[in-house]
Amino acid sequence: MTLADQPPAAAQVFRTLLTHGPLTRAEVGRRTGLSPGAVTKVATPLLTEGWITELGRPVVERAGRPPTLIAVRAERARFVGVKVTGDQLIGVVVDLAAQPLATGRAALGSRDVSTVVAAIARLVSRLRADAGAVGDGDVHSIGVTVSGDVDGHGGTVQYSPFLDWRRVPLARLVEDATGTPTVLENDVRALTVAELWFGAGVGLSSFALVTVGAGIGCGLVLDGLVVSGAHGVSGEIGHLPVGGSDRVCTCGNTGCVEAVASTHAITDRARRAAADPALTMKEAVRLAHTGHPAVRAVFSQAGHAMGLALASVANLVGPERIIISGEGVASYDLYEEQIRRTFRAQAFGAAGDCDLLVRPLPFEQWARGGAAVAAQRVFAPTVPQLHHP
Amino acid sequence: MTLADQPPAAAQVFRTLLTHGPLTRAEVGRRTGLSPGAVTKVATPLLTEGWITELGRPVVERAGRPPTLIAVRAERARFVGVKVTGDQLIGVVVDLAAQPLATGRAALGSRDVSTVVAAIARLVSRLRADAGAVGDGDVHSIGVTVSGDVDGHGGTVQYSPFLDWRRVPLARLVEDATGTPTVLENDVRALTVAELWFGAGVGLSSFALVTVGAGIGCGLVLDGLVVSGAHGVSGEIGHLPVGGSDRVCTCGNTGCVEAVASTHAITDRARRAAADPALTMKEAVRLAHTGHPAVRAVFSQAGHAMGLALASVANLVGPERIIISGEGVASYDLYEEQIRRTFRAQAFGAAGDCDLLVRPLPFEQWARGGAAVAAQRVFAPTVPQLHHP
Repeated sequence: MTLADQPPAAAQVFRTLLTHGPLTRAEVGRRTGLSPGAVTKVATPLLTEGWITELGRPVVERAGRPPTLIAVRAERARFVGVKVTGDQLIGVVVDLAAQPLATGRAALGSRDVSTVVAAIARLVSRLRADAGAVGDGDVHSIGVTVSGDVDGHGGTVQYSPFLDWRRVPLARLVEDATGTPTVLENDVRALTVAELWFGAGVGLSSFALVTVGAGIGCGLVLDGLVVSGAHGVSGEIGHLPVGGSDRVCTCGNTGCVEAVASTHAITDRARRAAADPALTMKEAVRLAHTGHPAVRAVFSQAGHAMGLALASVANLVGPERIIISGEGVASYDLYEEQIRRTFRAQAFGAAGDCDLLVRPLPFEQWARGGAAVAAQRVFAPTVPQLHHP
Repeated sequence: MTLADQPPAAAQVFRTLLTHGPLTRAEVGRRTGLSPGAVTKVATPLLTEGWITELGRPVVERAGRPPTLIAVRAERARFVGVKVTGDQLIGVVVDLAAQPLATGRAALGSRDVSTVVAAIARLVSRLRADAGAVGDGDVHSIGVTVSGDVDGHGGTVQYSPFLDWRRVPLARLVEDATGTPTVLENDVRALTVAELWFGAGVGLSSFALVTVGAGIGCGLVLDGLVVSGAHGVSGEIGHLPVGGSDRVCTCGNTGCVEAVASTHAITDRARRAAADPALTMKEAVRLAHTGHPAVRAVFSQAGHAMGLALASVANLVGPERIIISGEGVASYDLYEEQIRRTFRAQAFGAAGDCDLLVRPLPFEQWARGGAAVAAQRVFAPTVPQLHHP
């Protein structure tokens, strides 16, 4: 038996236990809206097959037999998540509760597809060993994440600018190289799944996750579901046309957020501001911190573009919270004030009540998102998704 | 018995019959994912209480007894929808299948709240009479729609710029004046509900409805649900900061789509372009059609701003279709080409596959949206909504 054979209510009970457990059956009923009878009916085969377990009874200060707590049986399955960047792999092995058991990184000597696939297989093998011996079985499946236009359903990287890949059937290639079922997802969308289940999105019905780095990405959760876009594109906040620069974006347009606020754009503009064509991002941050007016202005302009972009998200879909993360967050103090000021000015009415939360998330957390996507395909195959034609 | 007492599956069956009926029970099962037993179990009380009816058997060219068709019993309930604009009321009475039975308009001599409420009550009374005698009962409920920041759950107009209203408990006032339960909704969101159930959104899991007029609004449907925004604001496409003008928007910012592409903004800019401070929108359209370069440029700039706004929607949430409507559509030929050109250039990758559909919708259709919202509260009270804190 796999969880995929179970009725939709089973996935609902399982996910509730995963994000809020351990719980009593009555608490599961309250959170899912299922009747006590339905919870028991659904929980019994999950118990029998070892996906969940009884933890004993909570200590309560009253007479009578307290109800039993049930929880996900974390050791029942393992998943590997791998994030592929332009120059390294970041991997993690997690248990069924998405708790990390081992993590590791591997440098990529080349972006050649077969080299990267072989490196992924070696990293998976190393992580499997590092996580130690297991009871029920080895790794159930692998979730690989890549930035760019990724067709998760087809398992294909349609286009990844940083890897310079087009139409790479990466899921099948990794599956062949490792002998383990593999799923593929866009890296920001995978991190969004991790935030929804285990991070700053737990308990929210809607939030946006905005990542600032070499690119500017965004994952959206509305009504508890990750928005994937009818045509496979969503959350392309980096290509919102907020103006403020004549710099041509990677997409060929001008005025994109990414052309002003990506780490590449900031470095490029800071080089001109400091009249130093070899200036690094680190040096630009230092110059800004020491008060160099022109370099400070570069960060401030980036903050203004980001503030307009976040306000656009708030005005259009009105999330409860916007989480801001990514490499760019390291220098966030330089533009946070401008982001918040512009956001407040441009957000329409109550849209400005949206909570802006800065949250550094290391690449291991992104890799964990890949593992969460792999886990999601097992125990929540019935989660509705916008279809990809 | 009301439909609100029924299990969620009943609302699902009912809504499927409403948008796709008449259907056989087996077809209802296929569309809802419910088992044949579950459909029959849910349909029986709906039949008994007269919400749905058996229509007889479809004619089929084969042996054996064909299955019975079931359909919504349209005469079971009536709803009134009223759209309130700055200078008139537009009303409609519909049956349970949202088919119009009578429509009417009434001019507003003043925007004073008590005057408007009294006018609504008179219009409702007239429409009730115009719709003729009824079987099961009179009007079940009224759905009033207003542009601006509307708290549908609390029944309060928080702020409506065109009426110059703040914190008006309109639902309660209309309920007191008419003696009929009344719900309130933002007008664009109500039209979105109508498009989802009976218009160009039927059968789509996601679409956006963009309305161009004195304001520029947007309704969003994702995963079959109308996005309402965690803080009550969503679809504020008019306040996306796309730049292109120094004109100060009603919200106090510059660069908003509305400051370039609303009918007010176009008229204002055309007056300056034609050096005629009394120019009307109609005259501006005529000048543009006769080839006046500066006035044509005003429409072209509006088209560019709209194209950027539509691309922002496509890049962020990736709907299957964007429906473009509103008064502004009357002069759409003047800027359609520019809208499509800018949209194609700014939409990121496959987001550009989104279908742009121009669709004139008279104010009676907007009023019908109000009636659809009233009907929705009866038979789909369990539709999940983003909560309003």
